[in-house]
Amino acid sequence: MRPLIFNAFSMASVSHVYHGMWTHPRSEQIRHDSLSTWTHLARLLERGRFDGLFLADALGLDPTYRGSFDLYVEQAIHFPCNDPAILCAALIGATEHLGLMFTSSILQAHPFAFARAVSTLDHLSGGRVGWNIVTSTSAAAARNFGLDRLVEHDARYDWADEYVDVAYKLWEHSWRDDAIQADTQARVYADPAGVRRIDHVGARYRVPGPHASSPSPQRTPLLIQAGSSRRGRAFAARHAEATFIVSHHPDAARVAIDDLRAQTVAHGRRADDLLIFQGLSFVVGSTEEEAQRRARELDAYVSTEGLAAHVARDLGIDFGLLDPERPVSDFPNEGLQGFARFFEEAHPGQRARLADLVNAMSYSSRFVGTPEQIADRLAEWRAAGVDGVNLAYQTTPGSFEVFIDHVMPVLRARGLAQHEYAPGTLREKLFPGRSARLNARHPAVRSQAALAA
Amino acid sequence: MRPLIFNAFSMASVSHVYHGMWTHPRSEQIRHDSLSTWTHLARLLERGRFDGLFLADALGLDPTYRGSFDLYVEQAIHFPCNDPAILCAALIGATEHLGLMFTSSILQAHPFAFARAVSTLDHLSGGRVGWNIVTSTSAAAARNFGLDRLVEHDARYDWADEYVDVAYKLWEHSWRDDAIQADTQARVYADPAGVRRIDHVGARYRVPGPHASSPSPQRTPLLIQAGSSRRGRAFAARHAEATFIVSHHPDAARVAIDDLRAQTVAHGRRADDLLIFQGLSFVVGSTEEEAQRRARELDAYVSTEGLAAHVARDLGIDFGLLDPERPVSDFPNEGLQGFARFFEEAHPGQRARLADLVNAMSYSSRFVGTPEQIADRLAEWRAAGVDGVNLAYQTTPGSFEVFIDHVMPVLRARGLAQHEYAPGTLREKLFPGRSARLNARHPAVRSQAALAA
Repeated sequence: MRPLIFNAFSMASVSHVYHGMWTHPRSEQIRHDSLSTWTHLARLLERGRFDGLFLADALGLDPTYRGSFDLYVEQAIHFPCNDPAILCAALIGATEHLGLMFTSSILQAHPFAFARAVSTLDHLSGGRVGWNIVTSTSAAAARNFGLDRLVEHDARYDWADEYVDVAYKLWEHSWRDDAIQADTQARVYADPAGVRRIDHVGARYRVPGPHASSPSPQRTPLLIQAGSSRRGRAFAARHAEATFIVSHHPDAARVAIDDLRAQTVAHGRRADDLLIFQGLSFVVGSTEEEAQRRARELDAYVSTEGLAAHVARDLGIDFGLLDPERPVSDFPNEGLQGFARFFEEAHPGQRARLADLVNAMSYSSRFVGTPEQIADRLAEWRAAGVDGVNLAYQTTPGSFEVFIDHVMPVLRARGLAQHEYAPGTLREKLFPGRSARLNARHPAVRSQAALAA
Repeated sequence: MRPLIFNAFSMASVSHVYHGMWTHPRSEQIRHDSLSTWTHLARLLERGRFDGLFLADALGLDPTYRGSFDLYVEQAIHFPCNDPAILCAALIGATEHLGLMFTSSILQAHPFAFARAVSTLDHLSGGRVGWNIVTSTSAAAARNFGLDRLVEHDARYDWADEYVDVAYKLWEHSWRDDAIQADTQARVYADPAGVRRIDHVGARYRVPGPHASSPSPQRTPLLIQAGSSRRGRAFAARHAEATFIVSHHPDAARVAIDDLRAQTVAHGRRADDLLIFQGLSFVVGSTEEEAQRRARELDAYVSTEGLAAHVARDLGIDFGLLDPERPVSDFPNEGLQGFARFFEEAHPGQRARLADLVNAMSYSSRFVGTPEQIADRLAEWRAAGVDGVNLAYQTTPGSFEVFIDHVMPVLRARGLAQHEYAPGTLREKLFPGRSARLNARHPAVRSQAALAA
């Protein structure tokens, strides 16, 4: 079994997952707008042989807690939030191997400009870029880009299908590999026969091209996706090379992973063409008691209201206006009912309350223990089919530092973490033995073959 | 008289101004997609106490030479062209003082996303960002963003007026300076009363906000503009803090500068609120003969056809289909007629031919001479009212290296170039004694005052 992939899960913002933790004296996230905060973290991650830095994003401030956005501002919940692609660009020179994975919504950039920005990142980084494709669930984000309201869920995925289609054509179909001759004697930089327009005409976009950037080391960046809906999973199975899941237990992950892999195969790809990243966090101690004491110390900084506001925004239910003691079953929402069943199975005789939901969503993927216990737990996730971990922090860089210094050596000894980076691009590092480019089973490449036929 | 400002004029592309020069054995521009090419240049520029790196841009490939885009591809004329904002981001960590000035068209990014990208750059760089505002004259660029054709000239400036209005509101009006409290004891990161929506509703954009980034060191980046049309100059006089001109002679520059400064004052600003950057290039020798010999050596690499294709695209006249011997007066174009008058005054008894036009547009701002002769010439430009120079290269980094090593010491001795960087942001460096922020005479700030009143 190959080692797990490790990514640091973060955001160019003050408060990301464990809200309130920015008030901890050792949290550097309060200096999120300083380059040195991030170069320090990136170098630490390379010392720890982490595969990637995975940056989330937010594009709007929704008034979804007590009918207002005030709490989000006060507690810096994904606000302010700087541009993660710009941050990745700024980290290229400070790193050599680290994958730079950033979130970009189909809302925020025209695909012609986006494709060029990504090619530029991929050129300058020597092929270390990953794109987390999102469609944005925020109504405020949609309005910031001139829409009247959030586009309906399935229509957003239709939009995403066209968006990636435009980007694929630009990245994969516009320049032949042999177009660039850079022949100073013949005075020919590129062969015009090797550069073609894409002439995309679709429901939302008309893009003649050609692509403004030459082929970068990966051409198409590593494609990542995080949707958990039926349509989101279908999108991941078709397009993604890595998908980000947040399961509450390895058994639940196994069910999700089996489904994802089966769908991937149904799309004409191989089961191992899709990597599964599970979101997890850890509190580490040299004994279990020490770990529990540290967890209590850390939790003293957590804002329960902040957690509730975060969950409220994601689910579209304003917990700030509701009694946290109310049973989850009062709310006819598919996701909530699934949670209630899961909770009530795990806690026989108890009815899930809203407060349980908030705690469970925030803490169910956190584990408190010794390095050996954490390694045992990670072996279970690995056995369930998880390929990698998106590691959320309590404090940054503290959580990553402790993990790297105390847990990584145990993981390496057990073959659960890599000793050294593999050479090559991000795609070659994450798919050992494969090419820097998308394989022929991927729809971006298949459609090119169809065009050439 | 204060020293001249010096910017290196370049492009994330292979061939920028002196086409064909990429074939020179010492040209590094052929490796335009490698970060090290640019970090090397940026560090050289800081060693030379250059104020900025000024990056041009191109977003489309126009078939304006022999009815085709082939020559542009073959000679890499602004194609491929990577994203200059991403390149600037990648150079932040390699530099400490250098201004990072990039071109971004109103075509290419939605102002909500653009404003956040710029704020992120300004935060991470400690306030070293400049934005060269362009409306794009390329029909191919317009079509890549879904337009049927190039928007008519004056309508593009109406669009630009709204675009900067949205950006100003986000940068200047959305966050109060005292909004961020970062009070870990009170557990208040930002005061919600200090963050407000902008609720922009205009002809092209509806943007509620608030701005996703907190106020950066400069808030609004240094605003640069390069339009030479009547409407372009009016835009510069109203909005720009620096404008880029390419005059053929200091006397012509003086006329343009007097007009620009008068218009600036007419907009309620001070004459010295607008800096004038003149585009120039130099070939340096220890004697005049050596300089001329070097110029001949360099010119052996130049592609006259490449120059013609560049000018053809800018003027919308396909020189590839025309006899270069034809008189300019055959073409009823205001810009061409102005050129013809200028040429015929300088060359009594000769009629300007198309070939003269191409050479003049490419070479009229180039001077060949000794460091002392170049200093004399720069003193003339300074006396004409020019504040700074956008220095175009023949080879890069070679042209900049020679200038820094041989011309800069002479300029410093004469007070024409700075000895050391001033502290602070780019705005503070270029406007000594002023604030990091736009002054109260600028429309971005005036409209804020109006809102508050």
